[in-house]
Amino acid sequence: MTSSIVGLETHDVRFPTSKFLDGSDAMNPFPDYSAAYVVLRTSDGDEGHALVFTVGRGNDVQVAAIEALASLVVGLPTDEVLTDLGGFARRMSGDSQFRWLGPDKGVIAMAAGAIVNAAWDLRARREHKPLWQLLADLSPEEIVGLVDFRYLSDALTPAEALDLLRAAEAGRGDRAASLRTDGYPAYTTTPGWLGYDDEKLARLSKEAVADGFGMIKLKVGGDRDDDLRRLRVARDAVGPDTPIAVDANQVWGVDEAIEWMGVLAPYRPYWIEEPTSPDDILGHARIRAAVSPVKVATGEHGANPVLFKQLLQAGAIDVVQIDATRVAGINDNIAILLLAAKFGVPVCPHAGGVGLCEMVQHLAMFDYVAVTGTQDDRMIEYVDHLHQHFVDPVEVRGGRYRAPASPGIGARIHDASLTEFTYPNGPAWAR
Amino acid sequence: MTSSIVGLETHDVRFPTSKFLDGSDAMNPFPDYSAAYVVLRTSDGDEGHALVFTVGRGNDVQVAAIEALASLVVGLPTDEVLTDLGGFARRMSGDSQFRWLGPDKGVIAMAAGAIVNAAWDLRARREHKPLWQLLADLSPEEIVGLVDFRYLSDALTPAEALDLLRAAEAGRGDRAASLRTDGYPAYTTTPGWLGYDDEKLARLSKEAVADGFGMIKLKVGGDRDDDLRRLRVARDAVGPDTPIAVDANQVWGVDEAIEWMGVLAPYRPYWIEEPTSPDDILGHARIRAAVSPVKVATGEHGANPVLFKQLLQAGAIDVVQIDATRVAGINDNIAILLLAAKFGVPVCPHAGGVGLCEMVQHLAMFDYVAVTGTQDDRMIEYVDHLHQHFVDPVEVRGGRYRAPASPGIGARIHDASLTEFTYPNGPAWAR
Repeated sequence: MTSSIVGLETHDVRFPTSKFLDGSDAMNPFPDYSAAYVVLRTSDGDEGHALVFTVGRGNDVQVAAIEALASLVVGLPTDEVLTDLGGFARRMSGDSQFRWLGPDKGVIAMAAGAIVNAAWDLRARREHKPLWQLLADLSPEEIVGLVDFRYLSDALTPAEALDLLRAAEAGRGDRAASLRTDGYPAYTTTPGWLGYDDEKLARLSKEAVADGFGMIKLKVGGDRDDDLRRLRVARDAVGPDTPIAVDANQVWGVDEAIEWMGVLAPYRPYWIEEPTSPDDILGHARIRAAVSPVKVATGEHGANPVLFKQLLQAGAIDVVQIDATRVAGINDNIAILLLAAKFGVPVCPHAGGVGLCEMVQHLAMFDYVAVTGTQDDRMIEYVDHLHQHFVDPVEVRGGRYRAPASPGIGARIHDASLTEFTYPNGPAWAR
Repeated sequence: MTSSIVGLETHDVRFPTSKFLDGSDAMNPFPDYSAAYVVLRTSDGDEGHALVFTVGRGNDVQVAAIEALASLVVGLPTDEVLTDLGGFARRMSGDSQFRWLGPDKGVIAMAAGAIVNAAWDLRARREHKPLWQLLADLSPEEIVGLVDFRYLSDALTPAEALDLLRAAEAGRGDRAASLRTDGYPAYTTTPGWLGYDDEKLARLSKEAVADGFGMIKLKVGGDRDDDLRRLRVARDAVGPDTPIAVDANQVWGVDEAIEWMGVLAPYRPYWIEEPTSPDDILGHARIRAAVSPVKVATGEHGANPVLFKQLLQAGAIDVVQIDATRVAGINDNIAILLLAAKFGVPVCPHAGGVGLCEMVQHLAMFDYVAVTGTQDDRMIEYVDHLHQHFVDPVEVRGGRYRAPASPGIGARIHDASLTEFTYPNGPAWAR
């Protein structure tokens, strides 16, 4: 009998992180890190797991959106889905009625992304490969076939993408081998949450350097004097040579960002992340021109590849920050990696949250092996939260992500954690 | 006893429009025009009604999002809400956990907009004024206080907005009077749906001219030969002097839009609407430069004022098309009207759908009376669908919207229609 997709199961999972101000920043003072979690089931018993990261309230809306899309996937033959994940991704994002709710943005795009990613997880498990390797084993033609170029080809044609991937084909084997031995560079945001006091900031900053991280990141944008003091505390802790990035989480307007960064400039921040609205391409371009040599980074809230295309076309950013669950799945992120490669801008993925490290590392590693072939100026964010809930938690040693060896995309949460943290009736919340 | 908001009630209302291909275009071949409908109730019995327009599947997700936000509004004192609708709008969009689902875009932004608009409806009913008049009676300071300038002030400061509104203060009375006697110009899309045959297109086009509409609009982008033939049919029907706009509903990439419009150019379309992704500011700028003197119009899927700000900053469009339910409510639309006024670009609202004509006319009329003071190059879209379901249906005569006199924002649907078209169990769907 032919295998088919027989079920799409969802879970509203929330961790009460706001109790400890983990994850606190100027825009998100009290997040409860959450996952709108999805399991795709096939008639032969295989499963694909994926999630959308949210920060608490509204996780139920994200779950409802994933459930609404079930009608587009349940009943499809498994092979039809897995052998054409490009077509499947277009189908999830392209339904003419659901599309109206975006288009290509927000809750409905993230829901499509969850289902697309669950299908990738299913495929990776069936092929017994971690996602990065599955992707890096595809031919350039197969990779190009995963991307929807409709709104992108004025910046990157399929032929250009193919050239770029072919140019990187030769060294794939060597880079995969080096990845397995040496991993991929990380930086950490663990010390820098806005809700941590100076003692905790100093202690965690020192630990970060001792642990081998190449950079730390501090949340800023709440209060100027606090920012200056915390930058001093962190600089004293890490010494003169470790870069410190800062992250405003969108709290500023364009002129305010420029002015505030003028105040912080003496502390030589490595980059300013999310200085303003993630939608403001022209605003980021103005900020970049004004704050140079401080770099400008954004993307974790970038809704779709069309936004990234324009950030790159406008020369608005120095660092592209992809996120594992913000766009409509791995296919969109491949599009963004290809665009960034075309424009020669490094990708430093956003991570943290719930499972974002576990998932996004695969994309950075795929980029290294099969797209850009380099780790220069590239780092994956690392935050030391909630990894214990994952079946295949990230392994970061000596400030580097180790290449995952387990099959899948990394999103699978332990059954016991799903039960414990189900909202609102799991034991963690009922207490 | 002080009045407070005691309830937020929602309805999933869908009209089976796909049966007749009303509303069919190149991106949306089979829409079922729908409303995620909301009623705010106060302890003293007053109500505010609003809706989000969708095209069918996913309307339940939109309803779920509106319900999720109920926790932010139910229990608030009515006066606190209604006397500071600027603060209320910021509160609906600014919750740090819900905001993550956008930010400021898609399902969660439209949900915030529905609740904000229901509060405006409540206030307008309490003050016994149609929305356009309520807004046009506010002082320039009060209007400026409704807008969140955080991400806009690099293009428009509160002081500039104030100057602009003060400059328009003198003629308010005369323009309100002329609006009451002469109304506001309309154009119609009724003839142009892609699913209509040539005979129906010709017949409805002739009727549109006879009815006094100043322009008709045709859907394009499905097939070039069809587009050319339909443009000929429409041109023959309306004669040489009536402008014909065309609307591609986002089906093209940037280069494709330029090429396709080159083919349609001999038929002198008045504007090309939604030639590509609504998020592609730089793409619209390139298209505009290439297709001139054909105008470029977009905005019905413009997620927030930051997008409109950039479309204007980049000189990307000739016509700003606001939509009554796409952004986070009337406050966002006021921001867009002010931005358009600053840049001197006319606003021609998108309408049609369910209740969009009823609602958006108020914003165009407010713009005329209190913002720009002109109707030059301005028209509100009109489509002759589903008005019978509204308690205060639009009145279009001689190709002009008549100024509404009934209190409210125009979104209230008849109770009988709510019952009949409730999805999936209303009689219309159960049959």
